[in-house]
Amino acid sequence: MAIAAESFVLDPGHTGTLQRQLQEIVTGGILSGRFRPGDRMPSSRGLARHLGISRITVTLAYTELVANDYLTSRGRSGYFVSDSAPTPPVLPVGALPVEDRVDWNAAMVRRFSAGPDLERPRDWRSYRYPFIYGQTDARLFDHRNWRRCALQALGARDFEATTSDSYGRDDALLVEQIVRHILPRRGIAAEPDQVLITLGAQNALWMVSRILLTQDRLAAIEHPGYPALRTILGRSGARSVALQIDAAGLPPESVPPETDVVFVTPSHHCPTSATMPVARRRELLARADRDDFLIVEDDYEFELAFAAPPAPALKSLDRSGRVIYIGSFAKSLFPGLRLGYLVASAPFIAEARALRSLLVRHVPGHLQRAAAYFLEQGHYDAQIHRMARVYRERRATAEAAIAAHGLTALGANTFGGSSFWMQSRDVPAEILAARLRNRGVLIEPGGPFFGADDPGDRYRLAYSSIAREDIPEGLRRIAEAGG
Amino acid sequence: MAIAAESFVLDPGHTGTLQRQLQEIVTGGILSGRFRPGDRMPSSRGLARHLGISRITVTLAYTELVANDYLTSRGRSGYFVSDSAPTPPVLPVGALPVEDRVDWNAAMVRRFSAGPDLERPRDWRSYRYPFIYGQTDARLFDHRNWRRCALQALGARDFEATTSDSYGRDDALLVEQIVRHILPRRGIAAEPDQVLITLGAQNALWMVSRILLTQDRLAAIEHPGYPALRTILGRSGARSVALQIDAAGLPPESVPPETDVVFVTPSHHCPTSATMPVARRRELLARADRDDFLIVEDDYEFELAFAAPPAPALKSLDRSGRVIYIGSFAKSLFPGLRLGYLVASAPFIAEARALRSLLVRHVPGHLQRAAAYFLEQGHYDAQIHRMARVYRERRATAEAAIAAHGLTALGANTFGGSSFWMQSRDVPAEILAARLRNRGVLIEPGGPFFGADDPGDRYRLAYSSIAREDIPEGLRRIAEAGG
Repeated sequence: MAIAAESFVLDPGHTGTLQRQLQEIVTGGILSGRFRPGDRMPSSRGLARHLGISRITVTLAYTELVANDYLTSRGRSGYFVSDSAPTPPVLPVGALPVEDRVDWNAAMVRRFSAGPDLERPRDWRSYRYPFIYGQTDARLFDHRNWRRCALQALGARDFEATTSDSYGRDDALLVEQIVRHILPRRGIAAEPDQVLITLGAQNALWMVSRILLTQDRLAAIEHPGYPALRTILGRSGARSVALQIDAAGLPPESVPPETDVVFVTPSHHCPTSATMPVARRRELLARADRDDFLIVEDDYEFELAFAAPPAPALKSLDRSGRVIYIGSFAKSLFPGLRLGYLVASAPFIAEARALRSLLVRHVPGHLQRAAAYFLEQGHYDAQIHRMARVYRERRATAEAAIAAHGLTALGANTFGGSSFWMQSRDVPAEILAARLRNRGVLIEPGGPFFGADDPGDRYRLAYSSIAREDIPEGLRRIAEAGG
Repeated sequence: MAIAAESFVLDPGHTGTLQRQLQEIVTGGILSGRFRPGDRMPSSRGLARHLGISRITVTLAYTELVANDYLTSRGRSGYFVSDSAPTPPVLPVGALPVEDRVDWNAAMVRRFSAGPDLERPRDWRSYRYPFIYGQTDARLFDHRNWRRCALQALGARDFEATTSDSYGRDDALLVEQIVRHILPRRGIAAEPDQVLITLGAQNALWMVSRILLTQDRLAAIEHPGYPALRTILGRSGARSVALQIDAAGLPPESVPPETDVVFVTPSHHCPTSATMPVARRRELLARADRDDFLIVEDDYEFELAFAAPPAPALKSLDRSGRVIYIGSFAKSLFPGLRLGYLVASAPFIAEARALRSLLVRHVPGHLQRAAAYFLEQGHYDAQIHRMARVYRERRATAEAAIAAHGLTALGANTFGGSSFWMQSRDVPAEILAARLRNRGVLIEPGGPFFGADDPGDRYRLAYSSIAREDIPEGLRRIAEAGG
């Protein structure tokens, strides 16, 4: 049977090349059974004329399809659907309706639907003034070099690393980059067996919680603090205390002596940006030795310390092996990568590695290798350097506008970072956020950072995803709405 | 200060282009502090002459470095280390030794070091006769088109999908491909809210166990069965029974009525390859309705059903919503991708999505999108078609050699797949495996598939990673060693 050129219709909304679209039309026709083995394809001239495209495009598409055995070429006779083309078996799709007879409430022994979380509008990019935290800024990300590194990591030389089941192991190149080039900047000396690649900070916090916490353990966290951590702790069954932070972060004397694990963000408190001074860090470590507790240091955003050189990580001051350090590439590369690292004593890392194997077996090899190249070739450094410069400018612009409009930014930020912690003047933060959404402005109400004891008037204002020139007008609208 | 051309030394073992290596030498020098702002780089002519490379290579490297602000160009004066080059802060790396004072045994409330597992030699590719299961075969994998799809997924149009924090959501394109093109081949009709993208089958099994099992629940598994599943169940605290399979897989009448969850591999039992006939599948489903239990169907390798068209999935016969279906791209694409899918009733998928968010937030966007393109463009179909053809040939060659050497393959395989389940004639499988390692042959002793009641003489012989021409000699050596 001859397939008519007229049965080919191009879709203007199709992403990708014309050639690719043509191939998809043919493979789709074959796989759905509309085109049968032995059917004759339209001539390349005829199809090109019908679709108004170049003949070479059609010929290239046909040639690809021959290579993949969808079509076969019979010289002057033309192209035909191959007798050995891939064809899915024809199975009846279940015609009878499914009537769910399972009592899922009884069947599911655990629930994970999250507690209160940050507002996450999917279409945040469509807002004119998105003061939203933790997403990539397309204008800043070194897209070109990331592509090159990802492509390099897909080369024949790296085939094994990217495609193998690596069981529990990490990419040696990435671990080397972290150990030799990133950790020393935080003052941390580590051996490879003290490092574990993670699927990001969330993954690290969850694993730490699984290994160290159960009903008879006590965790201490910052108040306010990172919402996802409270959710993770809630699920762990452990008791937890939320310790009020001050302008210098978590006060060590507030940690109950019977605490087992303390979770801190000393470089740059989440969400207030307070930096814990070195003296306080030493005191926290002394208390940890005295009362025998562990410290989990989430060093998110350390690369964005542009206001002053960052203080050495808490882990770098740790002489007793008590600090479990969490690093992430979410801010310095991009959050969708899902890549980070844990640094801790070897026994802990070994257990975390075994747990990770149970959960996911290993972290995707391609992403690890691409990140390793990005680091090795100096693009990571150039990237964070560029981001720091842009963020410094954005922050300065925001500070001026905040002052000009009488808005209130809390805390004396000596770090840099990518956000302000604000106090709303007239209206509760939730109402402010709702008003602002109607005005094209996105802010993050602070409720989820508190859990209990929510003053209701705090909100986070990030400048990681908004252009400098849009900041003044965005802040003007916030002031106008009562922020 | 002028940097001498002689301080540049090329490393013959360096992977990547000359230009890239030059750039790395410069960025490394700057980031380590050896090259200081204002230092003058060697002239491109001088450096090219010293290294014996083309001048254009040096010039291109310098130009890239200027673009990233490592160097600055002063026209005829040459290139200099930029005053605003990225420079890491100089922090003293902890000079004092760390004396671990933590009692990790007491601190860690849970252990995850795995139980007995399959032998996983890292250097399996260096063996001449690797009858090893579950790894990619570089000769079969459509590397070229995977690269193209991965690159396409990194284009500007897909930037948001690949780089954003997508919170709990899956790539819509990939879900669409699974729902419209993969599941129908298994006879399964599903809505997007009944599908969850996973980080592979291991990830899916672990999440299912977390949601459905605790101390007062009973799980039933196949005996012998998938080792990682036994490890996962061991950690869940649930009671479990291992049900002896026969030539037709799991006998439904052996499932205790008080069972809560049954884990089966009906298409292709792991590791014996037995296929559960349709009549038995219907009986298992009837019992599940009668005794109110759930069924977890691990449909691994369904794409490798080349001996006969695959029977419809258990899930396609399920009218009560009791089957939780696990699919994976590990065999049809590559295991290092860490990508799969769960299909089940919407309430279960919702909880699994929430759990996944807690664990890892979401699956890396780039990998999902690349896989979606690979599927959409017909490469997945061409790939499994090609693999099935090659595996069919390898299997036939192996069957002939098995018969010729008097080896024993158990079971009547009506499926296809990528392995044989063998019974050693003279020596225990562990000893056989050790002997064979010295002869360049890798097999997988069957102990880990049993747990208890290990006959000791079973081993798995896979042909997914060994060339057809090597199979006869490999089997000859196995026979010679007593297999």
